[in-house]
Amino acid sequence: MTDPISLHALAESLTEPWRPVDVARSNDAILRLARFEGGFPRHVHHEDELFLCWSGTFRIELDDRAAIELRAGDLFVVPAGTWHRPVTDTVAYALVIEKPETLQHGNEGG
Amino acid sequence: MTDPISLHALAESLTEPWRPVDVARSNDAILRLARFEGGFPRHVHHEDELFLCWSGTFRIELDDRAAIELRAGDLFVVPAGTWHRPVTDTVAYALVIEKPETLQHGNEGG
Repeated sequence: MTDPISLHALAESLTEPWRPVDVARSNDAILRLARFEGGFPRHVHHEDELFLCWSGTFRIELDDRAAIELRAGDLFVVPAGTWHRPVTDTVAYALVIEKPETLQHGNEGG
Repeated sequence: MTDPISLHALAESLTEPWRPVDVARSNDAILRLARFEGGFPRHVHHEDELFLCWSGTFRIELDDRAAIELRAGDLFVVPAGTWHRPVTDTVAYALVIEKPETLQHGNEGG
């Protein structure tokens, strides 16, 4: 990386929902940005997944508790092994901090 | 973590500059939030450090190239082993993605 990356510009360039792009690596973590629109299939990862709502609003539906509602600037970590499903009624953009090997559709489900 | 964390609220609670707070862990990465005001001593880490400008503006001065100017929503990764110095002429808030063991004042300098 030789120049700074603008997340605002990158978000504007994302027109397809549920197609995260790799933004940057820092050690063993990768930062991805995605456009959320509608619902994504329920799935589970072997790794933690941090969701940071960048703009708009979305919720993360979980099996054993009420859905987590995220507005811009809110974050939540879905622990490894937790079934989850991001959903939005409108359009939202999310930053995701996870491992490079984390599979978007999960190790089960998806 | 059982509830979402609001970065906006957390930023408002930070009154002391250069006192990062741990926000959340995701795998081997930690997300920290800090208030930047003035300049921080030049230092270097054994690990990468990702800076995301949350609000305001700041720059990262580097030894071998022009300073990196960051506005809200801009990010830059300072690679491990790179001497750097965050500076702002006003007040800014930054998210930092690094390793839990990363020392704020660096392994040298600071």
